[in-house]
Parts: sequence; structure tokens; C-alpha cells
Amino acid sequence: MTDIAMIEAAQARLDGHVRVTPLLSSPFLDEIAGRRVFVKPECLQHTGSFKFRGAWSAISALSPEVRERGVIAFSSGNHAQGVAFAAKLHGIASVIVMPSDAPRIKIENTRAYGAEVVLYDRQTENRDEIGATLSRERGLTLIKPFDEPLVIAGQATSGLEIAAQAKEVGLDKGEVLVPVSGGGLLSGVALALQARAPGFVVRPCEPEGFDDVTRSLASGKIERNAALSGSICDAILAPQPGDVTFPILSKLCGPGLVVSEDEVLHAMALAFNRLKIVVEPGGAVGLAAALFHGDQLGDTVIAICSGGNVDADLFKQALDRHPI
Amino acid sequence: MTDIAMIEAAQARLDGHVRVTPLLSSPFLDEIAGRRVFVKPECLQHTGSFKFRGAWSAISALSPEVRERGVIAFSSGNHAQGVAFAAKLHGIASVIVMPSDAPRIKIENTRAYGAEVVLYDRQTENRDEIGATLSRERGLTLIKPFDEPLVIAGQATSGLEIAAQAKEVGLDKGEVLVPVSGGGLLSGVALALQARAPGFVVRPCEPEGFDDVTRSLASGKIERNAALSGSICDAILAPQPGDVTFPILSKLCGPGLVVSEDEVLHAMALAFNRLKIVVEPGGAVGLAAALFHGDQLGDTVIAICSGGNVDADLFKQALDRHPI
Repeated sequence: MTDIAMIEAAQARLDGHVRVTPLLSSPFLDEIAGRRVFVKPECLQHTGSFKFRGAWSAISALSPEVRERGVIAFSSGNHAQGVAFAAKLHGIASVIVMPSDAPRIKIENTRAYGAEVVLYDRQTENRDEIGATLSRERGLTLIKPFDEPLVIAGQATSGLEIAAQAKEVGLDKGEVLVPVSGGGLLSGVALALQARAPGFVVRPCEPEGFDDVTRSLASGKIERNAALSGSICDAILAPQPGDVTFPILSKLCGPGLVVSEDEVLHAMALAFNRLKIVVEPGGAVGLAAALFHGDQLGDTVIAICSGGNVDADLFKQALDRHPI
Repeated sequence: MTDIAMIEAAQARLDGHVRVTPLLSSPFLDEIAGRRVFVKPECLQHTGSFKFRGAWSAISALSPEVRERGVIAFSSGNHAQGVAFAAKLHGIASVIVMPSDAPRIKIENTRAYGAEVVLYDRQTENRDEIGATLSRERGLTLIKPFDEPLVIAGQATSGLEIAAQAKEVGLDKGEVLVPVSGGGLLSGVALALQARAPGFVVRPCEPEGFDDVTRSLASGKIERNAALSGSICDAILAPQPGDVTFPILSKLCGPGLVVSEDEVLHAMALAFNRLKIVVEPGGAVGLAAALFHGDQLGDTVIAICSGGNVDADLFKQALDRHPI
């Protein structure tokens, strides 16, 4: 079970390897949102998403003998790149199991980081089974995307940074809006803030049609999404909250916020124009909630923009649909 | 004359008001460049460019009685936004004199920051005369864009950050590639690094056809650009190096690097894909030099991406022309 001691140990292992992302803001966004909006741009993290934190945390915690046999991961893309690059920097091999409909850039980048990529069909094959089999056959250590205390501890270091940075700008309370898929980032940030900045409430953000976490929190039991694909928010389409993460979310998170795809594209365009950062759709759901769902929010929010690995064509769509 | 004491005093005034921008990198960029490339993304600074540093430095140094009468600036856009926002945060009025062909977003943003915008024709009117007249008539203090020691001291704080961040990643020598127009950022960074990280050489970067600083450094006297407009790099088209900045540049800078417009667009597309930042053409000339002019560079470079205020149409052109 991840606790603050495990999170601080992860932070020590990550020190000098992970990028401390800044806290951004713009008076233009404050005006649109009708409240103070801060943005934590994890899109600026190594490999373009927060996933590098968890990957580094898990790989750096392995014993040298286990680590040198290599690692394996299954991922829609961002965890893949995080694990591949963290493995490369540790000088070890990685095998990444990816859905065949993942964005081209994510598959290519994962290969470019030196990983062996194994593709599977999201509709007909089970990635966990494929991962487990490969892991067993080659002696690789499976780095799970979220349901793993060491990964949660790594993602939580983003929460430690938020706690420190909020204090620097004079904030001691507010809502932290977190894009959620399996719940690794969300649960990690919730644990970090509970310990270091307890005035903040963490709230999950999801796209319409893929609001399993919001519904699970409302009903008190794990609920599943009806579909496994079909959203522009490809990075956050895990079918349901994790067995490890859900109890943490149930205990620590506020109610979920659900945004439309058009709101996501609008948030991406505003992040381009006002913050000069590139955010992918799944990474922009928290900012979309901050900007367009103020009726459900208090006067100060911090939105984590969790990733930036978006194809140029989709990014151009966002700019075309929402000119400044 | 700006010196390290003045720079440190500026840093103290800026503390808590300016954003400390991170130092970014990507193995993909290293591979293209054939050397280690770090990027200082001043596009993430308040108002989307380094100009906020100098504006804050100059305005915060005014006596309260002088400051409350307001300030005036003339600028192709980024200095305008920096002065307008710094003035607003100080609770004072600002008048900004801008060329009528400046990008729409820059004019609109400057107005949105609460400034009064006065437009002039870059070909037929003299911005210095317009600024001086308005300044005299209304009792406003002129905040010059670069030829002012307090502004140079403000821009220099970016150099202090580079010195500290380079040390953190284990660097004690290399080349710092700086987009240059009038030379405020370049001279400030050169002074800061001379005092704090003397192993670094600062090198000016310019677009073809607007290489006045490169030619001035080569000839040893101030040279002028033939044209005053006609480049996508609208932010860095000052006609010649400043009278205050040129002696500093002559003493401290290495030879200039000149890049093509296509290289600039390519650097913008790579910054989008690999760093997840939005860089405007004028802000990308240093990164373009790092990536495509390796024959003139050593094995480690830090490129300042000095601004990100680019219209969506031009940004889309960069993405279209240089797909990943």
C-alpha cells in the first residue's frame, strides 16, 4: 500500500532524473473560467507525460539482478514511452505491448526509445494475458500501468511538487483536477496532498462515455465503461478503476467531472494560445473541466495537464475548431 | 551599465513574480542535432516571452511617484505584452505603440492586458519619435525594449537560471544560442553567464536577411538590416543592435549563426512534437541553429526559445511542412 514514506522514497530515487514541471497560469484562462486556474503541465515531463515518474519509480526500485533481465509493460502509449525511456536510461531491455489503434506517434516513439513493441487488438485480445505470458517466457518484470504501489508512488511525486508550488503562490486550499484512466496519477496525487497539503481536494476528470471512475465513486463500487475505444482521449480509456487504486480514490477523492470532446478540443486550443504548451486530448480533460464546468467548482483550481503526445492532425483540428 | 550586482538586484525584485522556466531536452533532438541539446523555454514565461522579465525589472525599479503616472513602450509585440501585464500587476496604466502589421494575437493580447494600443506604420513612421512625444505629453515613463540597463538586467535573470540549471545537470561549459533582435536578452544572458558560468559562450542567432548582429560582430561596428519587415520572425526584426547592448555583445559573444525560414519552421514542428512547447518563429532561431547548424557548434548547446506568441495559421504551416 502506497503511503507518504513510500512516496518520499520514490521522490529521492527520481531526484535528478525526473523533470520538476512548473506551475503555469494565464489571466485569460482565469477570465474564461471565472476563477483562478493553475496548470501543472506534465506534458513537459520526459517522454511527454507523467508516466515517466511511475516508470522510473518502479524500475529504480528493482534489485539489480531482477532489473537486468529487463521489463515489460502494456499501455495505450504514454506508459509505454515512460517505461521504454526509463528502461533505456537504466541500460536495460524493455518489451511494450500496445493496442494496434494507438496513435502512430506513440508506437513510433516507443520503438525509437529502443523498446520491442508487440501490438494487440483492443477489441478481441486481453493485454494482461499477453503481458503475463511474455513476462513468464522471457523473465521480464511486468511494470503495471497503475495498479502497483511503486508506480502510484512515482506518480505521487507530481503531487508533492504541487503541494510545494501551491505554497509558493500562497495557496493552501482548492481543487486539483486530474485526468483519470486507471487511477495511478489520481491516487498518487491524492495521497501526496493528503499528507502535504490537506486543504486540497482531488477530483477525477473524464470524457463523456468513459466516466467509469465518476460513476464508480458515485455508486461506491467499481463500474465499467461500455466501450473500450472510440474517444479522442486515447490515453485514458482503461475499462475501469484499478483494484489497488479504487480504495484510495473512494477514500480521498471528491466527485468526478465529465467533459465533452468539444470542450477537450477547446481546452487544447486555449493551452496552445495562452500557456504555449501542447496537451493531448486525454491530458486536457482536467483543464476542460476547470474552464467549462465552473458550476461544479470552487474559486481556485489546479488542473494537471497529464500528457502532450498528440498527432499533428488532431492538434490542428483543435486549433481550427476553436480559433482565438 | 548593467553588471552582476544590478542583475542580482533585478532577480530579487522579480522573485515570486517571474516564472522560473525549466530546462528541457529530448533524446530525439539530440539525435537530429548530433550533440546534446537543452532548451530554455521562455515561451512559458508570463505573457509568452522573456520580455516580461525586463518589463518587470524596469517598472519595479521606478519610484512610486513616477510609476503611478504610468508607462509607455514601443514594440513589435512581445515587449508590448510584457510591459502591459507588468504594468497591470503593478496597478498602473500603460500605453503601447505597436506596428500596424504585428500579428493580430499580439495586438489583441496587449489590449486585453488593459493597455491602450497606438498603431503606427513600420515603413513610414518612426516609433521612437511617437513614443517620445506621447511620453512627454502624458508624463509616462518610457520602458525601452532593450537599450536600457534595467531591462537588460531583467532579461539577464534568464541567464542566472541557466547557470544554476546547467550546474544541476552537470554542465560547466557549452554554447548558449540566443535569438537576437536589439540584443537585450543576449547581452543580459552574456553578462549573467560571464559572472556565474564562465565556461559558456553566448552566440546570437538570426534569420537570413535580418542578420545585423552577426554582421556587426564580424565587422566590429553596428550594421543595419536592409529591410524592416518581410520575415516570419516578426519578433526579432529590430533594424540594428542597440547602442547600449552592442558594446556588451562585442565583448562577450561568439560569432552569430544565421538560419533559414524553413529551418525555423522545422524547429517549431520539432519543439511541438518532442518538447510539447509552442515556439514562435523568432523564438525558434536558436533551436534551429542547434538542430541544423552543427558544423558551427561544439558538443553541448543550450537554446533559448524566447517566445511562443504565434498565430495558429502559421503554426499549422510549420506542422504541415515538417510532419514527424
